[in-house]
Amino acid sequence: MEDKHLLMIPGPTPVPPKVLSATAKPPIGHRSGDFSKILAEVTENLNWLHQTKSNVLMLTVSGTGAMEAGIINFLSPGDRVLVGSNGKFGDRWAQISKAFGLDVDVISADWGKPLDTEEFRQELEGDKEKKIKAVIVTHSETSTGVLNDLETINKYVKNHGESLIIVDAVTSLGALNVPVDEWELDVVASGSQKGYMIPPGLGFVTVSDKAWKAYENAKIPKFYFDLKKYDKAASKNSTPFTPPINLIYGLQTALQMMKNEGLENIFARHQRLTQATRAGIKALGLSLFAPDEAASTAATSVIPASVEADAIRSTMNKRFNIALAGGQDHMKGKIFRIGHLGFVSDRDILTVLSCLGATLQELGKDVDPGAGVAAAAKVLG
Amino acid sequence: MEDKHLLMIPGPTPVPPKVLSATAKPPIGHRSGDFSKILAEVTENLNWLHQTKSNVLMLTVSGTGAMEAGIINFLSPGDRVLVGSNGKFGDRWAQISKAFGLDVDVISADWGKPLDTEEFRQELEGDKEKKIKAVIVTHSETSTGVLNDLETINKYVKNHGESLIIVDAVTSLGALNVPVDEWELDVVASGSQKGYMIPPGLGFVTVSDKAWKAYENAKIPKFYFDLKKYDKAASKNSTPFTPPINLIYGLQTALQMMKNEGLENIFARHQRLTQATRAGIKALGLSLFAPDEAASTAATSVIPASVEADAIRSTMNKRFNIALAGGQDHMKGKIFRIGHLGFVSDRDILTVLSCLGATLQELGKDVDPGAGVAAAAKVLG
Repeated sequence: MEDKHLLMIPGPTPVPPKVLSATAKPPIGHRSGDFSKILAEVTENLNWLHQTKSNVLMLTVSGTGAMEAGIINFLSPGDRVLVGSNGKFGDRWAQISKAFGLDVDVISADWGKPLDTEEFRQELEGDKEKKIKAVIVTHSETSTGVLNDLETINKYVKNHGESLIIVDAVTSLGALNVPVDEWELDVVASGSQKGYMIPPGLGFVTVSDKAWKAYENAKIPKFYFDLKKYDKAASKNSTPFTPPINLIYGLQTALQMMKNEGLENIFARHQRLTQATRAGIKALGLSLFAPDEAASTAATSVIPASVEADAIRSTMNKRFNIALAGGQDHMKGKIFRIGHLGFVSDRDILTVLSCLGATLQELGKDVDPGAGVAAAAKVLG
Repeated sequence: MEDKHLLMIPGPTPVPPKVLSATAKPPIGHRSGDFSKILAEVTENLNWLHQTKSNVLMLTVSGTGAMEAGIINFLSPGDRVLVGSNGKFGDRWAQISKAFGLDVDVISADWGKPLDTEEFRQELEGDKEKKIKAVIVTHSETSTGVLNDLETINKYVKNHGESLIIVDAVTSLGALNVPVDEWELDVVASGSQKGYMIPPGLGFVTVSDKAWKAYENAKIPKFYFDLKKYDKAASKNSTPFTPPINLIYGLQTALQMMKNEGLENIFARHQRLTQATRAGIKALGLSLFAPDEAASTAATSVIPASVEADAIRSTMNKRFNIALAGGQDHMKGKIFRIGHLGFVSDRDILTVLSCLGATLQELGKDVDPGAGVAAAAKVLG
């Protein structure tokens, strides 16, 4: 059925109708007083969302660009970095680090498992000469639906003293608590098409005072990604280069919606959606890829076992106009992923589970099609 | 009057209502078959617009990001480059080149004057050892409204044989003839909020076979800006990172509109608007910053002489809701700029000139307020 799409992937995430309308307003000049006022409001609300007093910097990039800026601004070729990798995005940050000549030490875990915080402790405690300049961690690994224990890894980084912590919060920011200032997170990067509830095209980076000090000695070349330019401009409610004006219109509206809902409510909703989804999946006789204690609030990865993952996605799409995400890289065809990040409600989860039950039945699995809904409804209470 | 804004600056340019509506459609997954189809159509039409057979690459960046990618993908630290600079953007490409360790030789001209092609000839002919690896030229210098003679400079580059030509076509592409393949332009960078008639947030880069050969030996580090990633993905109707889906919806519609109008008609319209604007400005007793033979089709810069440039802009904005651009850097307050790039019609030019006449009268200038309209109408014929 045309125009009846339900987007349940972990990015792009669904965009509220009034945010879409805001993005469709005619652009005005980005150097005008009227636009400065919008930037001032947006920056103030971004700071609220990121729980930080310093400017949240906005770049015209996708999430990878924000993360690249977050890495290259604070390091020099040859610097040693520890990169946690247990999925496609952790792999990518290791690749970026290598591309810019960093001395990369990867701490990896199997896809579907969280990073072992003990390995970080050992590496950091063993680094008596303080050669590790940064620890790079993916908070919520979107490719697997695994949440890494950022708080514990960050504690070991703080004990180390010298190293920065650089966080990919692309699918955690706006979905669960990431108190940037309280945890003294040095660099936190994220992207618009995730918890922010707007279309892709904007990246966000926060920078601590300690990271700004490291910036002074960082020698990786940069211009468009030079975060100091963005920080200086942000202090004057401006941007160094033409910003994506219409996305910022949308962001203004989305942030107002988020403030109305409140941080605690947003986090509780994502927690509730995650638990309901997991309960429903189990009740439908499918397996979860990520363990309960490391469940991402952005996406739930499902191992369908006796049914083809891609057959499920295809039927969900054709019969019910629901888009689910597939596996990435070597997990292609082995898992599917249900996004529950951003503008997603209890109703959406019950909808997905009800259609998933019907789909499994259609694909010949011996299952009570309502079992997922029943289990989820119990969680939703 | 609220919501009655007329945007007459050289970027962002006005966006057609149906393009704005297209950008407000709900996003779909960027890895879906439906989105691949859109990318296929968009790439085909971009190739038509750029008059090239190779993939026009799309990056989530502003124009500066596209230009940075166009420079760093094909050069190594220490490489000698000739950069033409006669305005803010030429200056910027020299800055970028220096930031990445290139050996930069700047050929400059005063703001408001075109680059002297003879200087390029001499430098290139004098380079017997073929040390010049690239010539970087701003085609239409938006900060001054000056058009540089790309065709002639490119001829000298071709005679040199070794050097690439890297072109900032940010405000020329889609406004005047830039036949990428016919002229064998190696790298051409541009941005969405200009001739493309869509909001800012997308950059475009074309790459010649010769430039791809240079890419193989280029040593400036890159990841997000690595154009090979974009080219490989484009060949599969995909993108290496999440693209700005909603801007691409808009681009799809804008390109359809451009195809309906036809390349020749688009170029003729921009030529007509430029000449009409210039005739009108002269008739109102104001001076033109750029000489007739180097008039950009993107913007006309005006030296108001006896009236304050910023008073004119302010009155045009407050009385008539017309946004004009100011001068940049040391030209701030000395000139104002009228944009006539993209979705701009004959009517818009007559409107601006009529309101400018009224504004000059209001500011006490002894002028026939209808003189600009009369002169422009004659050109429009």
